[in-house]
Amino acid sequence: MTQSAATTEVTRAAAAIAECRLIATMSEEPGRTTRRFLTPPVAQVHAHLRGRMEALGMTVTVDAAGNLRGLWKPTDGDHKRLILGSHIDTVPDAGAFDGVLGVVLALEWVRAAQALGMPRPIEVIAFSEEEGVRYQVPFLGSRAVAGIFDQKMLACEDAEGVRMDDAIRAFGLDPARISEARAEDDVLGFVELHIEQGPVLEAEGLALAVVQGIAGQSRLGLRFTGQANHAGTTPMHLRRDALAAAAEWMCAVEATAREAKGLVATVGKIALEPNAGNVIPGVVSVSLDVRHLRNRERIHYVQEFTRTATDIAHKRGLELEWVQKMSERTVHMDPLLSADLEAAVEAAGHPARRIPSGAGHDSMVMATRFPTAMLFLRSPGGISHHPAETVLEDDVEAAIKVGEFFMRRMNAQMKLNSE
Amino acid sequence: MTQSAATTEVTRAAAAIAECRLIATMSEEPGRTTRRFLTPPVAQVHAHLRGRMEALGMTVTVDAAGNLRGLWKPTDGDHKRLILGSHIDTVPDAGAFDGVLGVVLALEWVRAAQALGMPRPIEVIAFSEEEGVRYQVPFLGSRAVAGIFDQKMLACEDAEGVRMDDAIRAFGLDPARISEARAEDDVLGFVELHIEQGPVLEAEGLALAVVQGIAGQSRLGLRFTGQANHAGTTPMHLRRDALAAAAEWMCAVEATAREAKGLVATVGKIALEPNAGNVIPGVVSVSLDVRHLRNRERIHYVQEFTRTATDIAHKRGLELEWVQKMSERTVHMDPLLSADLEAAVEAAGHPARRIPSGAGHDSMVMATRFPTAMLFLRSPGGISHHPAETVLEDDVEAAIKVGEFFMRRMNAQMKLNSE
Repeated sequence: MTQSAATTEVTRAAAAIAECRLIATMSEEPGRTTRRFLTPPVAQVHAHLRGRMEALGMTVTVDAAGNLRGLWKPTDGDHKRLILGSHIDTVPDAGAFDGVLGVVLALEWVRAAQALGMPRPIEVIAFSEEEGVRYQVPFLGSRAVAGIFDQKMLACEDAEGVRMDDAIRAFGLDPARISEARAEDDVLGFVELHIEQGPVLEAEGLALAVVQGIAGQSRLGLRFTGQANHAGTTPMHLRRDALAAAAEWMCAVEATAREAKGLVATVGKIALEPNAGNVIPGVVSVSLDVRHLRNRERIHYVQEFTRTATDIAHKRGLELEWVQKMSERTVHMDPLLSADLEAAVEAAGHPARRIPSGAGHDSMVMATRFPTAMLFLRSPGGISHHPAETVLEDDVEAAIKVGEFFMRRMNAQMKLNSE
Repeated sequence: MTQSAATTEVTRAAAAIAECRLIATMSEEPGRTTRRFLTPPVAQVHAHLRGRMEALGMTVTVDAAGNLRGLWKPTDGDHKRLILGSHIDTVPDAGAFDGVLGVVLALEWVRAAQALGMPRPIEVIAFSEEEGVRYQVPFLGSRAVAGIFDQKMLACEDAEGVRMDDAIRAFGLDPARISEARAEDDVLGFVELHIEQGPVLEAEGLALAVVQGIAGQSRLGLRFTGQANHAGTTPMHLRRDALAAAAEWMCAVEATAREAKGLVATVGKIALEPNAGNVIPGVVSVSLDVRHLRNRERIHYVQEFTRTATDIAHKRGLELEWVQKMSERTVHMDPLLSADLEAAVEAAGHPARRIPSGAGHDSMVMATRFPTAMLFLRSPGGISHHPAETVLEDDVEAAIKVGEFFMRRMNAQMKLNSE
């Protein structure tokens, strides 16, 4: 019996991975996975998932924001729903697991609830859009479900000039009905499963972690303005080299971030004028991305980094301008739902590691309305948004097991409450 | 008389400046100065200069490389020619003085020789091409005169796909006759007048300098390869950030170059992959330009800079590749002709400052065959290759005066030799 169960368990994790790889072939581009908001392959994914959900006895609909929603309603009672899910859009040339794995695993969690005969309804949502690739606005699907979809976004145009409302119509949906995608208040909470997309769990040899919160994020643009000049005729002491100044500042930012616990600071983008090998750079524009789970720390370091840039520019006779383009506060996960998840992780035989998420997720949006918790699976090599993105079969199996313990716990709580 | 002479002197410098500004209006683009090799405005410049040269009694031809050549031949004797001149092509959106001023001032020097009745022939060459903009190959005009024009270059195509030989034909010239552009051996030497294109003379409060040589130049490309990763999910200690490594290296290069006398080192170009604000840069490619008047020093520092890059990459778990794209040796100016020029500078009442040229010039090519000397005029603000490029009227007047003393000296030497 134990032997046979083990065999079955290995099979279901492998099946989940195979299913993700199958869905990855549903793409806008042959040979690589690119699936932007409501493009034709999304309909293929919907057809596939609809079949899977219906096989589990779920009622399937697509809301006007393009979210595929499967409802498992075991009784006619008025129990609050649990929502599970993640997104099915991808970045260009994506991997197979970012988002999709969370939907596929949600179906396994539904199966676990069904096996227990848990009377609570479960809705699985395959969110239509999280990456923000097509319209440069992320979380379109979860915004609609959370009821914070801004109708003005419907006028956005994609790179080909297609308006968002036209794209929704072309998919056979009615953009006028997006407000109906909003979830009713009968929601117990939302749980998202997602790959970590970072190297922390791998570095620590762990399969899973419960997410503490989505780290607050500041994005800035800084511009150092010096003087473009001939690289051969301008002695070092008469230069006002914008790139040399930016390099000094980047070293300072990195040194500070390495010392500060929980802080990440990244210069990911740079633009030089004139960007020619024989001309001293006159203007250098850089991006700065700063994240920390504690808002106060994040704001403190943003101030420190801009002050350092100003000092370096001043010392070198340059000008510095900077602009803050984003300052999003940390979104904390629900403590009670997270504790349930943590208990399930421990029951499944894993340490209850808690880590912040440095990346944004649908959880962040859902948390604005519902108690929300999130489970990370180890990302081998920390790689995501890349065809080499992968997951370990044992980790997927662990996540399925966590679902079983989570549902057991939830079922037990319902029984306690009804007694 | 003194009063009247002074008035005339002021007038001729102002006239030279006005002439440069007039020539600057002969452009491929309305409102800005762009004059690439053998484009239509070059014919306008030729017509203008031909009129000026003929008014001085010079015989004017255009050789097959597009150089306008005016010969002043005062006697039928067999005295060796002095060649004067500079180039009349420009970079896009250029200033009015780079190159052109050297041609206009050469005519003033001819006038000075004529006033003395000096029996030596003088050829003024308006070189057709020095900047290398149209065919990505510089010094086309002076290469032809020096006899080192590579016929294979005729097959080069410009950005519009026009072959060089077709461009020469379209200008009414015969590319098969380029070898005839080669100057005979009856050349005493070549003197070029040019704006400094750097800030050294201005910083020292000097009008003029005699050029020691054209500094040798190394150009390299370096590529730091780390690991692109999510800016939010990758802790600082697990990063292999290619830009952070490049920044550390750029700081080291700058610090070394500041300490080393006569060295300039420039990172002017940078390219990041993927160059996105929320992704840690995985690959950073940078250019490195290193110049020094002493070849040994230049080669030493190139080795030091690549070794430092390798060390930094190694320490951070990155890979470094580098390639040397150019290693040109210093071209020294002729000591005797430069001494004559220096003496003329001092006779004109200016300190005999000698500086290296960090930029390439036609002098560099002419020096491969003829004794060559070069005079720099101060560049206000060190600005060139820009519409704001300018010269001071007093400095232009000084350069004309140097011509008078230079011709006096040459005339006296001829008399001494003939006695």
